[in-house]
Amino acid sequence: MNFDKIIDRRGTHSVKWDSMNRLYGVSPDTGISMWVADMDFSSPDCVQAALAKMVEHGTYGYYGEDGSYRDAVCWWMANRHGWQVDPSHIFTTHGLVNGTALCLDAFTQPGDGVVLFTPIYHAFARVIGAAGRRVVECQMQNNDGRYALDFDAWDAQMDGSEKMLILCSPHNPGGRVWTQQELEGVAAFAKRHDLVLVSDEIHNDLVFGGHKHIPMAKILGCEDRQVMMTAASKTFNLAGAHTGNVIIADDALRARFAARMAGLGIGPNSFGLNMVEAAYSPEGAAWVDALVAYIDGNRAVFDAGVNAIPGLHSMALESTYLAWVDFAGTGMEREEFTRRVTETAQIAANYGPTFGKGGESFMRFNLGAPRSVIEDAVARLQNAFGDLQ
Amino acid sequence: MNFDKIIDRRGTHSVKWDSMNRLYGVSPDTGISMWVADMDFSSPDCVQAALAKMVEHGTYGYYGEDGSYRDAVCWWMANRHGWQVDPSHIFTTHGLVNGTALCLDAFTQPGDGVVLFTPIYHAFARVIGAAGRRVVECQMQNNDGRYALDFDAWDAQMDGSEKMLILCSPHNPGGRVWTQQELEGVAAFAKRHDLVLVSDEIHNDLVFGGHKHIPMAKILGCEDRQVMMTAASKTFNLAGAHTGNVIIADDALRARFAARMAGLGIGPNSFGLNMVEAAYSPEGAAWVDALVAYIDGNRAVFDAGVNAIPGLHSMALESTYLAWVDFAGTGMEREEFTRRVTETAQIAANYGPTFGKGGESFMRFNLGAPRSVIEDAVARLQNAFGDLQ
Repeated sequence: MNFDKIIDRRGTHSVKWDSMNRLYGVSPDTGISMWVADMDFSSPDCVQAALAKMVEHGTYGYYGEDGSYRDAVCWWMANRHGWQVDPSHIFTTHGLVNGTALCLDAFTQPGDGVVLFTPIYHAFARVIGAAGRRVVECQMQNNDGRYALDFDAWDAQMDGSEKMLILCSPHNPGGRVWTQQELEGVAAFAKRHDLVLVSDEIHNDLVFGGHKHIPMAKILGCEDRQVMMTAASKTFNLAGAHTGNVIIADDALRARFAARMAGLGIGPNSFGLNMVEAAYSPEGAAWVDALVAYIDGNRAVFDAGVNAIPGLHSMALESTYLAWVDFAGTGMEREEFTRRVTETAQIAANYGPTFGKGGESFMRFNLGAPRSVIEDAVARLQNAFGDLQ
Repeated sequence: MNFDKIIDRRGTHSVKWDSMNRLYGVSPDTGISMWVADMDFSSPDCVQAALAKMVEHGTYGYYGEDGSYRDAVCWWMANRHGWQVDPSHIFTTHGLVNGTALCLDAFTQPGDGVVLFTPIYHAFARVIGAAGRRVVECQMQNNDGRYALDFDAWDAQMDGSEKMLILCSPHNPGGRVWTQQELEGVAAFAKRHDLVLVSDEIHNDLVFGGHKHIPMAKILGCEDRQVMMTAASKTFNLAGAHTGNVIIADDALRARFAARMAGLGIGPNSFGLNMVEAAYSPEGAAWVDALVAYIDGNRAVFDAGVNAIPGLHSMALESTYLAWVDFAGTGMEREEFTRRVTETAQIAANYGPTFGKGGESFMRFNLGAPRSVIEDAVARLQNAFGDLQ
């Protein structure tokens, strides 16, 4: 578990490093990549061992019985999240962008409205649009640097054309871990407006001290409309394996989803299945505990350094490794603070407006990297905004 | 390239070995698995090296720039098949069942007829049905153990509700390599009935002496309706990686397909991309040449042994490693010859009726295994049908 080790990912088809110049104009030779949400860490030894075993075997035919995979998923959810999953409720998709798209396909029609609490993970809006559905942006309140849900305003905003709500729990960006009360509010909101409630819980394992992730599946009152999405990809850095789980307890929703899985020929790949099964284990759990402690240290360093710059504010993360920095206090135009981050500091970070309403004055910085890289990033930002001191 | 080596695949999540008892009642401890179409061979060293490099790197984030992957696909199609592919015409799907399903989704509507030349690869009918489209079975002629296309009969069969034709080229099962004249007939048939022509060429590399696979893309007169499907999965035994290519030269069809790829959140996994790129290389080509020669030897052994049994006839394969054996000459009921294969010979082989009309008296035997296994299978069949001698 050497998270301090620098791993050179350049030239490995890493989108984070090999596309940063094209997308952000930041050279991988001089810059730091802090955009897309994967980490610059190796996966744990248990995952490495599973892959090494596959390579040693050397035969890559069709994957069959997935009982042990399903058991591993159930074990993880029970042990880490107190959530009892029926193994027959699990669908394994090609990651959760595909999982989201399949939910849209199974549960909505072209033209239907899909509610997002913004700012939110940008791929939701992309796939909603690409599927010919409509994004309904419900902007969260930013209460002194902490996001809050605004059901009263959103109730007034609904016009009956909305058919689905995609919740991001914990929330990306901003890192909120929703409380029991907030989740009950979400369930009631979904019920009030008759929305299928898709809960993307991909960051469920990356939660910091004092906070506790509550699976939406444990919230009463929305069992008839609930779709859970989880994955090991963020937790164990396996995004390239394109493997996610859509878990549906309701019989009618599950049947509709199963029909689209079959009709679209969706089946998981053997690498992802073997890696996730290995990751969802006691050894994987110990690694995650160490990872979370390390990222917690990274955010402490990052937040202290960034919040020392007048006009910048990094939201206090309760979850995720994705720092969400507000530049509003600088009074600068977006072009100016973006230029300072990308050109002066030479940091590739996600642009706030891609996350929807409320993201205009923000940028998102990925903290899933060795401590020394985070310290370097802080120094670069302090230099780029040094005239504000 | 040691194809003689016995690799024990039991307990590796291999559907071929670990599901044979459940599906065919043949124990993997005493039986031989000759059903689903993957091979009991290791992948070539170039593929192994690509995977080993990934494991050594140990970081499995999002895959980015795929230019070198596309270049490898184009190189292979140009060098092995004389087909110039524009890299921007390639879509990488989750294997070709998913590719087929995406074609159905992009180019047809629920209720539309989809034409298949039967007997044919069973997954086509499964996914057509699951997608709510209708299978239109056009039965091929069996001319003394060689399949032929019967356009006159099929013209009379069409009623205008058919919107797509899925061609299997080379054909599975039966192993026909379609001639230039036959492919021109297919193109004319598709044009005559205004069908999108999807050509699944997954077995394009596995062609035996004297025969030459011609990509449908090289046939004139159907450019406006043509969709090509290729993959390295059969050739290099990579089915578990779930990676296939749908290649579309026509601008309008390509735009429709691209929209569904985006709307369904389909993106390839990094393992498949790296493996296929490594496979589509000079080293991969040398391995394939050796593989084809080896399988050619297997089919000689198998056909000689099986055709020596009165009443059994194994079709002379021009392509694929899938022997197609007709038991009609035995005069037995299907239950009887099936029982002898599964119970007496202890061989798991695909049931003919799953391949559609014309498959009733057949079973399909997978020859992608060490020579000693093929010899064992022949001996078992000769014993099981010994009373016919």
